[in-house]
Order: sequence, then structure tokens, then C-alpha cells
Amino acid sequence: MTHVNTPRDGGVRLAVVQLDDYGPWTTTPEPRRETDLQALQARLFATVADFFGDRDGYAFAGRYDNMLGVANHIDPEAFTRLQERVANQYPVTVSVGVGTAPTPVAALEAAGDVLQAAGSAQETDRREVLDHRVVDGATPGTLTVAHFDVVDVTGELTDRVSPDVAERTVRRTMLALSERLAEEHAAVTQFVGGDNAIAVCPDVGRPALESVLEHVRSETGVELQVGVGHGPSAHAAGFEAKHALEACRATGSRIEGPWGVADD
Amino acid sequence: MTHVNTPRDGGVRLAVVQLDDYGPWTTTPEPRRETDLQALQARLFATVADFFGDRDGYAFAGRYDNMLGVANHIDPEAFTRLQERVANQYPVTVSVGVGTAPTPVAALEAAGDVLQAAGSAQETDRREVLDHRVVDGATPGTLTVAHFDVVDVTGELTDRVSPDVAERTVRRTMLALSERLAEEHAAVTQFVGGDNAIAVCPDVGRPALESVLEHVRSETGVELQVGVGHGPSAHAAGFEAKHALEACRATGSRIEGPWGVADD
Amino acid sequence: MTHVNTPRDGGVRLAVVQLDDYGPWTTTPEPRRETDLQALQARLFATVADFFGDRDGYAFAGRYDNMLGVANHIDPEAFTRLQERVANQYPVTVSVGVGTAPTPVAALEAAGDVLQAAGSAQETDRREVLDHRVVDGATPGTLTVAHFDVVDVTGELTDRVSPDVAERTVRRTMLALSERLAEEHAAVTQFVGGDNAIAVCPDVGRPALESVLEHVRSETGVELQVGVGHGPSAHAAGFEAKHALEACRATGSRIEGPWGVADD
Amino acid sequence: MTHVNTPRDGGVRLAVVQLDDYGPWTTTPEPRRETDLQALQARLFATVADFFGDRDGYAFAGRYDNMLGVANHIDPEAFTRLQERVANQYPVTVSVGVGTAPTPVAALEAAGDVLQAAGSAQETDRREVLDHRVVDGATPGTLTVAHFDVVDVTGELTDRVSPDVAERTVRRTMLALSERLAEEHAAVTQFVGGDNAIAVCPDVGRPALESVLEHVRSETGVELQVGVGHGPSAHAAGFEAKHALEACRATGSRIEGPWGVADD
Repeated sequence: MTHVNTPRDGGVRLAVVQLDDYGPWTTTPEPRRETDLQALQARLFATVADFFGDRDGYAFAGRYDNMLGVANHIDPEAFTRLQERVANQYPVTVSVGVGTAPTPVAALEAAGDVLQAAGSAQETDRREVLDHRVVDGATPGTLTVAHFDVVDVTGELTDRVSPDVAERTVRRTMLALSERLAEEHAAVTQFVGGDNAIAVCPDVGRPALESVLEHVRSETGVELQVGVGHGPSAHAAGFEAKHALEACRATGSRIEGPWGVADD
Repeated sequence: MTHVNTPRDGGVRLAVVQLDDYGPWTTTPEPRRETDLQALQARLFATVADFFGDRDGYAFAGRYDNMLGVANHIDPEAFTRLQERVANQYPVTVSVGVGTAPTPVAALEAAGDVLQAAGSAQETDRREVLDHRVVDGATPGTLTVAHFDVVDVTGELTDRVSPDVAERTVRRTMLALSERLAEEHAAVTQFVGGDNAIAVCPDVGRPALESVLEHVRSETGVELQVGVGHGPSAHAAGFEAKHALEACRATGSRIEGPWGVADD
Repeated sequence: MTHVNTPRDGGVRLAVVQLDDYGPWTTTPEPRRETDLQALQARLFATVADFFGDRDGYAFAGRYDNMLGVANHIDPEAFTRLQERVANQYPVTVSVGVGTAPTPVAALEAAGDVLQAAGSAQETDRREVLDHRVVDGATPGTLTVAHFDVVDVTGELTDRVSPDVAERTVRRTMLALSERLAEEHAAVTQFVGGDNAIAVCPDVGRPALESVLEHVRSETGVELQVGVGHGPSAHAAGFEAKHALEACRATGSRIEGPWGVADD
Repeated sequence: MTHVNTPRDGGVRLAVVQLDDYGPWTTTPEPRRETDLQALQARLFATVADFFGDRDGYAFAGRYDNMLGVANHIDPEAFTRLQERVANQYPVTVSVGVGTAPTPVAALEAAGDVLQAAGSAQETDRREVLDHRVVDGATPGTLTVAHFDVVDVTGELTDRVSPDVAERTVRRTMLALSERLAEEHAAVTQFVGGDNAIAVCPDVGRPALESVLEHVRSETGVELQVGVGHGPSAHAAGFEAKHALEACRATGSRIEGPWGVADD
């Protein structure tokens, strides 16, 4: 494993990409057509995803007006380029808060803090803020990414129940997962479509993940599986995690990761 | 009110737009870069949203691989045009199930049923299915749309707590709302970004909505407000609902809709 | 042939989609990044193309700030929907001029006229104009579309000369084609990528096309082939033209169209 | 001027982004809807433009199936990321040829050569080629960008003549410009929309540009103005050129650039 010699508990850098004064814009001068807003939000997120992807980061839609990104490889100043692109291609602008901290939860809180410190999300003259906060002198290090999905989602849900029941079941499951991982492991977890969720987390071992999966199953009745990866960027760690999840699918195991026997 | 002479409890037509064999594609020949998938899903949904918007419908991202649309104004055959466009512009194809039924829940179930009847979502040779099921002879009629948001979300959440806490709070709230509206009113409810959710529902009155808001508040601690509209299309009904929600914001009331005093 | 009973020389409806006050916007407050402008223009045109495509029309990028569309099937009022979408999804707005006339050239001139009559393209307060002019009482009728390409472009140009030489050769050829078709047949011709050009033209027969191809060859040294189709919409006529062009490719003939022996 | 100490005649790196086997795809199994192809080509170019823009390059649509980019700041290996993104988000793939040479014309020829050497653009098994050729040991150096537009295009063309006449006039002008600059200065020139053309050229002085403008005027009757910039990247040079062109617009001069009196 190439990660063996890198510290697994390096700091994490997360970013919040927040639409400036978006709520009021959606109803000015009168409410805008909902499908136009849906398409705008989606394409804007695609632009954000491409921006992070170009830098080996990860991006998440969040609430669409508050998107998230994993930015371990990204200099905070680079976000001026994203802000410029959005301003030139969209009818809205974005502010970006960046946080670098020992844990994902602390990094995201710091990213949110810098935006809140700059003014309200609905202040008309707070536009295109870009700021960065470092917590406890953390620097971006090796990331751990855990990629979860539902065991046999097609057979259990997609091909069997109504689409809204399937969606609520998946959403409820991912919400329980996100809450547990945040509380117990200071991880930030996002639903990424289908039956997939991705967590940026401190290094966790197999026993901790077993406990998380068991908690989610008891709360929601849904069985998850998870692949874990480490790497210098979200893409590198996430790619290893995806391969590990493929191993789950192939072998029927529920947890796969870059651990030797001694690690378990 | 222009809707006065139309029956308010007309049938509902909903569509499920399902990516064909998508899960396997995302990992073939090896896992694809996550940000590329995020961007693909988002832009594909934007195409779907524009398609529905062009026909005065509404579209929702759902789980991204299973998108939803309100199609009261749309002939089921018209979806061949969407399927053609997706096949020509994207690396994936879509199947579309359409259901017309007396209630949104029944319509969505029918839409899902026709896809399930055609084969598994992960069958490699089930591609570009298009089918329509009518339940109890229903025909598309006047729609009721309820547009919800969180009272003072900026002050209570966005400007105050960490982005992931804000998101989980909103998601948990919208999940509770969706469950309640499905169970008690056979409505289909979708989160549409920020702090907004839109429900396609049978005609509901003020007391029923009061009960729903109270239920959500007691379950999640979050206070919602709602505007209701009727109309021949999702856009028409939704536009009236958005205006009603604006009235909530302006007046401080929690429920606004197209009711006279006698209706309350 | 399904077109046999329809008049082949019906009127033509063309539209100009003009960005409002675009030049000044591109340099305000200072010049915007060129690649952002390129991407903006391209995606905006894609939105326009989808809009026309949804209505069985054709769309052409033109100069990007002045796009064109074939709108025989489109009620001029429908463009308010396009204007709404652009305003909601892009940082710019568009005006639309529509002309219905006996010939394509006259229709495009009328479409341009109504915009010019409404004010300058760079007037800051001329925004989202939509107007329609009918010439000589024309109504949209059966369209003739001619689809041209370069004989063996891959062998003659793409695989053989430098990309800029290939492009200039193709552009010069298409310019000569466009000029000739405009002057002699009142047709509107647009380059559509690769080695393809599409002309909306009055009904032309094989001898006229032979003369056009010969003119282009003598002017530019490039040999073109062409497929012709008729139909009630640009898509219908163009689809027949594409099939005819396929017949050229398959048989080695240079002109194919919906003519019986007697027509030739 | 910050460019003073950098050599102005450094090498140029250009890239050709060529759609693989695109022509056949557009007609398989039967001709695809033209507006879908237009939208696909446009969005794919937007993706390419964003990719180059992210690296301070420039991108040009070319013939759409053969796009161009200025890549002085881009490691040829970086294009694997673009190829990956296109393959993941579009139904087509791209090959990329990169050339580094003393002049733009030589660089583009080299970029084309490496693709031609790899096989035909319509070979079904030539996919996602990426190769780089260096001519005469050139390395990317300081670039010169010249940004041209038509003097008073709005008054002379857009507001006065038919859109197709305006377009042909502009296209004819830009073609004459491109030919002249290629022949006399080994420059690569692309139309970029509206009335704008951008040339990547070796360092040219005011007298040479006067001669070019005079040639174009005598050939086409159209008067151009031009701003020139130098810089380490296309964006840096182009940004200076845009500012210089603004100076033309402000002062009425026809040529502005980073020259002292002694240079003239």
C-alpha cells in the first residue's frame, strides 16, 4: 500500500460554496419558475464539481445553495478562479469559506464560520467573500474516505417498492449514517445519488465501522456495506474506497479497507 | 380565482425517469471519478428539469438515478423526445415510467410499477423503456401544490450553525414532512434545495396543513410555513403556491392558500 | 413520400435570438476571461438548440451573439418561455425577432428588422424584446432543407492537412456556398460543424443544385455533396435530407433528394 | 510592463482536441437529431473551454469536431484528465494532439501531425490518443495575443443589415484576416463570436499590424481594430490584449499594444 508511510490522521481542508443572497433572488421581482431554478442549481453544482475534480477534490451538492467540497489539494486562493467563473457564467455569485482542521467536522465548522463572520448569507452587499480559517495549526494531510452503499438496493428497493418509498428509505438511512459518523467520528458524510454516501473521516478501523453499520441497521432496518481508502487527495482516497467497495460486492463482505490483518 | 370552476381533486400524472443499468456503468471497467459522476448526474437532471419546464411540469432530482416529474400536461408519448435527447447527449440512457392515478402516491407507485414490470433497473438489455399505467381510470386534472420552507432558515441555521448540521436539520425536517404527507394525504414531497420542499398533494385545507406543520415541529423542532396553489399544471399550481408562500413571509402567517373564509 | 400532398413552397419562419447589450457586458467592469465567455456562449446556444429541438425546429450558432432558428412549428409567443429560461439561468438576456416570409432570406431579414426597429443591440434599456413580422401574408408551410458536406473530408483534409488549413478550407467553402445560395435561391445557409452545412431554402431541383456545387468547386476547389428533404418542420425536412445525404455516401452520387425521375 | 524581461518570441504550445470517429457516430444507427448534435457539440466545447481556462489557456471551437487550445501553461499529460472527463460525461471520446513549436502555425501542424500519425479520425479503434510533438526543441515561452474586432460593428452591421449578411461579412473578414496572419506571420487566428477574432502570433509590431488591417480592409471593405498583449499564458497575454482593445475603443486608435515609442 502506498499510503503506509504517510500519516493517516493529517488535517482536512473543506470548503463551503455558498450562493450569495440566493433566496431573495429566487423570488425577485416575482417567484421564478421552479424548473429553471432546479436546472440552474444543478448546472452550477456541476461547474463546482468539475472545479474540484480538476484538482483531485470531491464536491457535494449539500443543500444546493450551500455546496461542499474536499479541498486538501487546493490552495484557498484558487477559489477566486471558481468565483470568477460562476460570476461570468451564471446569474448568481458565490462566496467560499475554507476551513483546515484536524477533523472534517471541525474543518466544515471553520469553513462555515468564516462565511458567517463575513455577514449574513442574505446580506445584499456581502458578495464573493473568500476566506480561510485554520484550526489548531492543522495542515492538509492524508485523507480517509469511506464509500457506503445499500446491500442489494436494486433487489430490495428500486425493483420492489415505489420510488418515493425507496428514496425516503435511502435518505433516512443516509441521515442516520451521517449523524452517527459526525457524532462518533467527527466525519462529514454526504449522499451522492442512488444508494451511495461518501464520508470524509478520520482514520477509522474495522471495529468502528462494524459498530456504525450495526447502528444504522438497528435504526433503519437497512444494511450497508462500506469500502475505505486513504490517500493524499479526496480522489486518491475515494478511488481506493471505491475499489474496496467493489471488493465488498464481489466477496459479500460488508467492510473492506486498506488494513492488514494486524490492523483489524 | 381562475381555478374556481375546475375540479380540485383531478387525477395526477407523475413520471419516473430512471437511468438504465447505471450502477454497473459507474464502475465499468473500473470506478469512474466521483466528481465526473456528480457533474453528469447534475447536468442530466438539468436536462430533465428543462424538459418538464418546457411543458409546464415540475421535476425533482429524487435519488438522481431515479428522477421524478409532474406531468399533468404531458402526453406520455412525449417522453420519447426526452429519451432521444438523453441518448444523443449523454453516455447513459433513461427509461420512463408514467402513472396517472387519483392521488400522487398512487401515480408514483404506478409509474414505478411499469418500470419494474419491464425488468430490473440493472438488466443490461432493458433500455429506454417507456410505459404508462392508468389507475382507476384517472385523468390528469387540477393539481394542488404546497410549497414549504423553514421559518427564518438564515437566522436559525445558515448564519448560525455548521453547514452539515444545517443540512441534516433541513433534511430531517423534510423527511418527516414527506413521510407525514405521504401517509396522511397520499402526497409526494421533494426537497428542492435550500430550505424548500414541494408537495404534490390532493386538495388539502388549512386545518390539515396546521396539523402537518405541528407534527413536523414536534418531531424535529423546526417550524415550517407553507403556501398552497391550484392549477391545471404543476407550474400554474406551483406559481400560485410560491406567491402564497411570499404572503407568509410578508405577513408572518404560517399557511396561505387559495381559500376563502368559508373554506377554512 | 408523405410530403407529396403538401405545397412545397410554403412560407418560412425564422428567428434571431440576440443577446442584449452583450458586447459592453463582456468588458464591464473590465474584460472578462475569454474562456468563460466561450463557455457561456456555447452553453447558451445549447439551451437555444434544445429549445428549438423540442419544437422540431433547427438552431444555428450564427455569430453566437446573434443565433438563428428555424421556427415553422413555433408560435412566436412561445419564445417568451425561452427568454424566461435564459434570464433565469444565465447572466445575460435575449431578444427574439421572428420573421415569416415567402423565402428564408426574406424571413431572416424580417426577423432582423423587428429587432432593429426596437432599438440598438447595444441599447442598455432594450431588453427581452419579442416581436414578429409577417411578409406578404406568408404562413409557415412545407420546408425544404439541404444538408451538405465535403466529399471525403477525412481523407482530403482532416487526416492530411493542418487543422487550421482544414478549417479555413471548410469555412471558405461554406461561405461560398452560403453566398451563392442566398443570391440565387434566397436560402439561408449555416455551417453546423465538421464539414457540414445546412441550408433552409425554397424548393430547389437537381439542376439548380448541380450548378451550385459546380460554382463552389470552381471557387474553392472543394467538392460537396448534398441531400435534400421536405417536411412540415425543420426536423422532418432535415431528417429526410440527412437520409438523402447518407444515400450520397453509400452510392457515390453527389445529389440525392425526394424527386422522382420526372422531377430531375 | 511585467513582460519586459521575458523573451517575447518563446515557443508556443497548441492542442487539437478531436472527437473520435464522430462523423459515423452522428449517423449511427440512423441520423441523429440535428439540434441534439448542435447542443452536444456546444456543451462539449464549453467543457473544453473550462478545462483550458482553468489552466490560463485559451480554447477555440474550430470546426467543433476539431477544437483548438492554447496550452503554454499545460503539461501535455494533463490532457488525460480532460479525456477522462469527456468519456465520463459525454457519449463520445476525444483524442488530443499537442504540438510545441517556434510558431503557432508550426505548433498546430505538429499537433495535427501526431493525431494523423496515430491513425485516421474515423478509425473505429483509434480512441483517446494523446501525444505530443516538439518542433526544433521549442519550449513554451511568452505568448503574443492579438484581439481584433470590427470598428462599430453594431452601427455598421448588427443594427443595419440582415443577420445572415452581417454574419457572412464578419466571417469573410475573419477568414481574410486568418489567411493573411497565417501566411505572413505564422499566426493561428480564430473567430470567437460577435465580431471578435483572436490571433496567437509571434511578436508583431505596429507596422506589421497596420499592413494586415489594410490588407483586410482592401479585401473585404471592413475596418478592424486590434489590441495586442504579451504574457506567460494565453490568458495573461489575452487579458492585456483585451485592455489594449478597450483603449482602441476609447481613443479611436486602431492599434494598441505594449510598445513604447521606440518600438513603433
